[in-house]
Amino acid sequence: MRINRDRVESRLDRLNSIGVDAGGGNTRLSFTAEDRQVRDLFCGWLEECGAELRIDPMGNIIGRFPGSEKELPAIALGSHLDTVPNGGRFDGTLGCLAALECAQTLGEEKQRLRHPLEVIVFVDEEGSRFGTGLLGSRAMLGTLTSEELHAARDREGISVWEAVRAFGLQPEKLAESARSPRELVAFLELHIEQGGTLDKEGVPVGIVTAIVGIKRYEISFQGEANHAGTTPFSMRKDALLAAARTIVAVREETERLGNPATVATVGRIEARPGAINVVAGQVACSLEIRDVDAGLIARIGKAVEARCAEIGIAAGVQIAVEERGYIPPVPLDPGIIAAIEASSGELGTPCRRLPSGAGHDSQSLAKICPTGMIFIPSRSGISHAPEEYSSPEDIEAGIQVLLGTVLRIDGAGA
Amino acid sequence: MRINRDRVESRLDRLNSIGVDAGGGNTRLSFTAEDRQVRDLFCGWLEECGAELRIDPMGNIIGRFPGSEKELPAIALGSHLDTVPNGGRFDGTLGCLAALECAQTLGEEKQRLRHPLEVIVFVDEEGSRFGTGLLGSRAMLGTLTSEELHAARDREGISVWEAVRAFGLQPEKLAESARSPRELVAFLELHIEQGGTLDKEGVPVGIVTAIVGIKRYEISFQGEANHAGTTPFSMRKDALLAAARTIVAVREETERLGNPATVATVGRIEARPGAINVVAGQVACSLEIRDVDAGLIARIGKAVEARCAEIGIAAGVQIAVEERGYIPPVPLDPGIIAAIEASSGELGTPCRRLPSGAGHDSQSLAKICPTGMIFIPSRSGISHAPEEYSSPEDIEAGIQVLLGTVLRIDGAGA
Repeated sequence: MRINRDRVESRLDRLNSIGVDAGGGNTRLSFTAEDRQVRDLFCGWLEECGAELRIDPMGNIIGRFPGSEKELPAIALGSHLDTVPNGGRFDGTLGCLAALECAQTLGEEKQRLRHPLEVIVFVDEEGSRFGTGLLGSRAMLGTLTSEELHAARDREGISVWEAVRAFGLQPEKLAESARSPRELVAFLELHIEQGGTLDKEGVPVGIVTAIVGIKRYEISFQGEANHAGTTPFSMRKDALLAAARTIVAVREETERLGNPATVATVGRIEARPGAINVVAGQVACSLEIRDVDAGLIARIGKAVEARCAEIGIAAGVQIAVEERGYIPPVPLDPGIIAAIEASSGELGTPCRRLPSGAGHDSQSLAKICPTGMIFIPSRSGISHAPEEYSSPEDIEAGIQVLLGTVLRIDGAGA
Repeated sequence: MRINRDRVESRLDRLNSIGVDAGGGNTRLSFTAEDRQVRDLFCGWLEECGAELRIDPMGNIIGRFPGSEKELPAIALGSHLDTVPNGGRFDGTLGCLAALECAQTLGEEKQRLRHPLEVIVFVDEEGSRFGTGLLGSRAMLGTLTSEELHAARDREGISVWEAVRAFGLQPEKLAESARSPRELVAFLELHIEQGGTLDKEGVPVGIVTAIVGIKRYEISFQGEANHAGTTPFSMRKDALLAAARTIVAVREETERLGNPATVATVGRIEARPGAINVVAGQVACSLEIRDVDAGLIARIGKAVEARCAEIGIAAGVQIAVEERGYIPPVPLDPGIIAAIEASSGELGTPCRRLPSGAGHDSQSLAKICPTGMIFIPSRSGISHAPEEYSSPEDIEAGIQVLLGTVLRIDGAGA
């Protein structure tokens, strides 16, 4: 049973004709006109394939194909259609099309599953408009609160609540979006890797072992702004020098304690007053540490704090390391991992296990039901940019493995 | 012959009642209403003391007191009245009052010098309004061009030329501001140190040996912006990490090659895209190196460039180090240095030699005639801020040494 690669490519083109921005990328923020257009197009395709269509109160799209055994929980597949600003053509969008393609191929082949099959389009995965993220899948998990819907606002000051309502949805019925573990036997998401490991190694399929945890910090350096000509080194309290030593220490500690997949990043920095001829008195920077091992994240965080204490004393700079959020690692289901691996093996498609360094709706779903993710290569690891690219061959291989995995799970029963 | 400390303090108060800003500091930008007010007040005092007043075409104020020997060149004393935004009470202002106080004390004591005495208020030393600097003293030196007067503009787009004209002056007669070496036998400037060396050591008088040279660079780092979760260290081209290593290297190389007074500063940094979850792809930072030894400045610059080349290769980041300006060091006159030292010794006032890490009008005047500078302590080395402070005792000691130096130079003849 072969999926139709050309159909997927043609639908990718049609979806990505919506929200084309001035920078040559795609911008489809949540609950906007562009979001409406892609959703409507996708819902049309689902209905053409014979799905029972349902939009939950938060806007998640659920296209359901009944199974032969009525009482069984569903096998769900899906991803998201929203993008970051000036984003790429594949992130999320491809996973939605892969889910649809599996359902359509099964229908065309008259291969009715025992379990119901659901194609899910999660709303607002990227969170680019409101600074949220995983909104739809957290609503399904039942951890999204109405307080957050009122508090999170876009640049114009519109809250998520207001935007959801204006979109014709029912945020007041948020609780009805929650799914019970009894309803789902498995969730599978195909996604681009957004990293360069598969591309570099030439492996078409990645099997995600876990979604990394993320610990975020804000580090502030309080030194003393001083004349750059009249203040000898011995009298300086140079906040930018202390920050530079900290950035180097973050890399050193992470390499010392971590494994090859562990990452820590300082991506944002501001120095004040920020003049060529003034020693910086204040610096603020971000730090985030990611790994699949919560203990390792904590150890690296402590090591960085210890290094900051040393650096601060040596530089006469007060360094404050404040934790600003923690998302624990989410291991994916070993049974599903094995099923994906078996499906790849059967098809003769090379695969490898790897962690996901990025967050995905799968991390919410993993708390509802056994969940797995299939990665396909991103050229040069580039994502969240117009240059994002995955080849038709890799897309075909990935969806084929996804379909095989669905059949295995369906056959294994539940 | 004692100067009148209370008169100086009272005049400091009156001058600094002009241009008081919301931040509790003084803001007197060039060719503004505040500038007009302090200039008028100061000119009034000069006239009360019997000076022949002259305003040159660029706005430098010259109050001249004839000497007993008509053909001799003048001994000139002076500084500036303009401030940086939210500046302090002493920077420049004190030097003008010190010059006036010497002239007034001599007049009151009926001590007529052999040489004419000039009290000079240089216009636009700070350059805060137009991004210029040393405007008046460069006009006296003859190196200021009318092109610069047309090109340099303030935030409202007003050129120096326009502002000077609107102030009632004559920029078209710029060349007439130039002074000939034949007119001046010596120039002396009393100024606050703006650094912490004298304050820390408890020495009331500093004798400036040289004004440091300044070499400025713009360093740009071109890496690759990438997802902070999905890009392992081995695949990163982290521009901010490369910049951090460079900032640390700047300090290391300066300490390795320089002497205790050598300084190098990275005061400004910008990282893009500047997001917590994106590896920085582009960073730009400033660098400046200051020392009294031009060769040493050049050697440190070369050493930093060499380190940048290593860092860039290791990080996969392209680093460009571009020179953006060089002001050579200006040694001050050994004869004047000796005269200041002798004057301090005679008065029993502790003194020490030190370089000036900041630029001053004296560096222009040093190219016209033998020039010297007297520093007095700045509390905690703070300057260009409302907290700038020098004690009445140190002010008195400094002006007394200045007056003694004038008498020595006058007596030494020319």
